[in-house]
Amino acid sequence: MAVEATPGPARATTVLGIDPGLTRCGLGVVCGPDRRPRVVAATCVRTEPDQPLEQRLLVVQDAIEAVIAEHRPDAVAVERVLFSANVRSAMATGQAAGVALVAAARAGLAVTPYSPNEVKQTVAGTGAADKAAVGRLVAAQLGLDEVPRPADVADALAVALTHLARSRLAARVVGTASASVLADAHRAADVAARGGWEAVLGDRLPPSSARRTPTRSARPSPKGR
Amino acid sequence: MAVEATPGPARATTVLGIDPGLTRCGLGVVCGPDRRPRVVAATCVRTEPDQPLEQRLLVVQDAIEAVIAEHRPDAVAVERVLFSANVRSAMATGQAAGVALVAAARAGLAVTPYSPNEVKQTVAGTGAADKAAVGRLVAAQLGLDEVPRPADVADALAVALTHLARSRLAARVVGTASASVLADAHRAADVAARGGWEAVLGDRLPPSSARRTPTRSARPSPKGR
Repeated sequence: MAVEATPGPARATTVLGIDPGLTRCGLGVVCGPDRRPRVVAATCVRTEPDQPLEQRLLVVQDAIEAVIAEHRPDAVAVERVLFSANVRSAMATGQAAGVALVAAARAGLAVTPYSPNEVKQTVAGTGAADKAAVGRLVAAQLGLDEVPRPADVADALAVALTHLARSRLAARVVGTASASVLADAHRAADVAARGGWEAVLGDRLPPSSARRTPTRSARPSPKGR
Repeated sequence: MAVEATPGPARATTVLGIDPGLTRCGLGVVCGPDRRPRVVAATCVRTEPDQPLEQRLLVVQDAIEAVIAEHRPDAVAVERVLFSANVRSAMATGQAAGVALVAAARAGLAVTPYSPNEVKQTVAGTGAADKAAVGRLVAAQLGLDEVPRPADVADALAVALTHLARSRLAARVVGTASASVLADAHRAADVAARGGWEAVLGDRLPPSSARRTPTRSARPSPKGR
């Protein structure tokens, strides 16, 4: 017990980020919190709209369980489902999120939900960032030559990066890996992180035109998830 | 193949009916279609609102998988989730339904959804029947001395009875067990069954005060599912 509480360098953390959806579900596994977080895996699970709902949900859950089994993440972060004008599509997305949560729980993993706004604030420094800007910043953070496609994968990686950034900030504030203290710190980081990605990364952010044009309103994605 | 297509007496069918919910999820296994459908199992899965969502959903899915493993139903029928004024509660119910669907799909079972109105029309002869009337008719159909409690269990049994009744009607119309023909017949039965339970059971319905007072509007259940 005493050994576990000894402060030391934070060990690498692997986070599975999920952008839930029934037609397309983005999955991104990111490893950190070293100076350069890297992509371990990224994929988009697709299901056909003409298949029975239960089969589509099974495909999503099986795919997530397979990713967890292969990459053994330490934590799961999921983009929170918000209600849009299209209630049916919001319900389908919510059900995909639900089966994703069960996949995580079955593996004994804690799940942290993040609102789209929290993700954009953390990754792009503003909740007003559009999808393209978030995609470019995700690529820059992960040292990728191209923005991950489709957008669901970029979003999943953004959620994973959000969790890494907030965990890292929490660990820095507290200077210990004690789980209970980290939980408190996580809440403190929720406030601190509203200062944006820069509060966490400082000068690591690359210059990007995306960061200079964050005023465009985020529009609802037209994807049929 | 020819043997399978030979018409004959319909074999007993076991149906798992599910009234999805996160706080309370009703499960009812009914065996038919002999003259007296009987309850094989009935239970209410409960989860605590102060537990993490992923743990609650896991409890629901595990419980349904356990019931399927123990009672090996031939089919699963689920009450369709309708959107109420409380969007958050509708989403929770929808997510519970989603994990129920995955449990069924994982066991290779087909799932048929029924709207609350379809269930009431089939079991009580009118979509305007209230919960108490449905409960009494479920008890009468299944030869139970008391109305199953809580209401979630009665609702789950009602969904299972609805599926049995519609399957039986479909089989009677077609006179064959051919799966593809049955699928067409099932659609025909959707129309026929709008004539109500009596169209299927005839004089089997017991006299009940509930059947004489079906005019009271069904109110949304106050349960926090």
